[in-house]
Amino acid sequence: MKGAVLYGPHDVRFEERAVPAITQPTDAIIRISATCICGSDLWPYRGLQPVTEPTPFGHEYCGIVEEVGSAVKSIKRGQFVIGSFFASDNACPNCKAGYQTSCVHRELVIGAQAPSLRVPLADGTLVATSDVPSNDLLSSLLTLSDVMGTGWFAAEAANVKPGGTAVVVGDGAVGLLGVLSAKLMGAERIIAMSRHESRQKLAREFGATDIVSERGDEGIARIKEMTNGVGADSVLECVGTQESMTQAIRSTRPGGSIGYVGVPHGVQLDGQELFFAHVRLHGGPAPVRRYLPKLIDLVLTGKINPGKVFDLTLPLAKVADGYRAMDERRAIKVLLQP
Amino acid sequence: MKGAVLYGPHDVRFEERAVPAITQPTDAIIRISATCICGSDLWPYRGLQPVTEPTPFGHEYCGIVEEVGSAVKSIKRGQFVIGSFFASDNACPNCKAGYQTSCVHRELVIGAQAPSLRVPLADGTLVATSDVPSNDLLSSLLTLSDVMGTGWFAAEAANVKPGGTAVVVGDGAVGLLGVLSAKLMGAERIIAMSRHESRQKLAREFGATDIVSERGDEGIARIKEMTNGVGADSVLECVGTQESMTQAIRSTRPGGSIGYVGVPHGVQLDGQELFFAHVRLHGGPAPVRRYLPKLIDLVLTGKINPGKVFDLTLPLAKVADGYRAMDERRAIKVLLQP
Repeated sequence: MKGAVLYGPHDVRFEERAVPAITQPTDAIIRISATCICGSDLWPYRGLQPVTEPTPFGHEYCGIVEEVGSAVKSIKRGQFVIGSFFASDNACPNCKAGYQTSCVHRELVIGAQAPSLRVPLADGTLVATSDVPSNDLLSSLLTLSDVMGTGWFAAEAANVKPGGTAVVVGDGAVGLLGVLSAKLMGAERIIAMSRHESRQKLAREFGATDIVSERGDEGIARIKEMTNGVGADSVLECVGTQESMTQAIRSTRPGGSIGYVGVPHGVQLDGQELFFAHVRLHGGPAPVRRYLPKLIDLVLTGKINPGKVFDLTLPLAKVADGYRAMDERRAIKVLLQP
Repeated sequence: MKGAVLYGPHDVRFEERAVPAITQPTDAIIRISATCICGSDLWPYRGLQPVTEPTPFGHEYCGIVEEVGSAVKSIKRGQFVIGSFFASDNACPNCKAGYQTSCVHRELVIGAQAPSLRVPLADGTLVATSDVPSNDLLSSLLTLSDVMGTGWFAAEAANVKPGGTAVVVGDGAVGLLGVLSAKLMGAERIIAMSRHESRQKLAREFGATDIVSERGDEGIARIKEMTNGVGADSVLECVGTQESMTQAIRSTRPGGSIGYVGVPHGVQLDGQELFFAHVRLHGGPAPVRRYLPKLIDLVLTGKINPGKVFDLTLPLAKVADGYRAMDERRAIKVLLQP
């Protein structure tokens, strides 16, 4: 089969790879119905995270189970499934606490930008729908594998509450779905920080009540102006840079909360600044497995349509074009069809 | 009058100072019934925080109101009052949210190691008891001005819940009162990290179920062993060094919470470590004003006796001896009698 392989900065190739096979009795093999490119794939693509050897890429997936290992009990051949980017046993103390991305047996699921994928710990990792969903739901279901669950975790970690004010730093797919999540959680005011018209538009569609296009100190000052001089109740940090984290901390009111889900790159937090900021900080790799049953239900019943973040659909063979489009911010998020 | 003045490292003098007077119409003047030395006073005393000029010291106090400014409405002459180390108007958005130590008009109360003290924003800052309490309650009431409220905030910020496991890093007065607070909040298991016998004893008296004397990586390994391999639900960080903060972060389970109240000195947090640790972080200068009514009630009704942290009582004139005793860890906390 042919799939995406990252060789180094700006070098993604669509090339022949071995067809995945069961290697552990707890594995499943999935035929990919749809996959996509993640904002976090851009870190290594941009050379901001080292790539030491050619690496099959992609970690977002949904599809049909083709084969399961001998120890797999609940997941069956023919089922439509969605899973997280981290495989988890869903049984260890961390999984039971709802932090499946810190599963003591966690394993990165990688190589999803391909027609076929091996998923470890299939019973713990995958959630099956009762029927194979119609094609028009595929894009929304695909987002549950990462970005929608990550936006949801950001909002939850930021303690978004009915009637509260939420600020979203970052207008990528995760930030936009953070807006949608904050809306679903009842935030009264949702301020999206964005300077891109198409993203502003989608943010408003997802529930943003205000747009702030300023950044840095100016952005912080705007948020303060809009929030009684003290900052927002909840801030969703969906980027992962020093600048975005600083913006988040300084935009939050004392006692308010920051949910941070952008993988930090070169971020250092000064203990004393954080102390006197009086904020709550929670984040990490989103435990999307925890949210899958609930979010699948919201998609299947038509209550949410997170698939709107895909503004470019390409055949898998054009994966390199997809990376370029996202790198150049011509696309919010690219869906790939095997 | 004579009071404590810090001149520089290891140089506290008991010397003549101007008697405080009303300078703002919102001020009150208090005759100090009891004051004390704080662990945080040791940072500048040890030269770890610069002292640029001779500075009247001390920020923990309770006493009798001698005089109030013309704008003071609720606080009256003759009342026994306790207040926080930060004066607050108790009316701004941050105060209303329960974060009086981030009051937009906050002002440090300093110079309490003296017979008399000016307290700004008296109506917002001070809480009066209905009667003048008996002398045997003075030491416990005095702790509510800082250390007991700070331990309480640490436990609350660490989300201590009935049935949970709490770890307390730091065996100073705040850490010990963090143990007491965790006990009051219903923690089932309270692990105090301490290597000093007298402090271990008091920790047990306050409710610690276990003592861990190891520190650093060994201490973290011990905590993991004791907590299902994953770490504690709640960790109270009551020191403020890089080592203690690292110990706290690595002793907390994914999804667990750290309440940090030790003023950070030279602490830098690595964004990526914090991200993958999956912990919740909240802390800052404890809003002890929020807790005063509740904690005063607990002391007056005999439900708590936090004054036990004072293991040395000196006349105010011996304040320099008190600093030495705490610096050399011969005393947990020193009460000073004017």
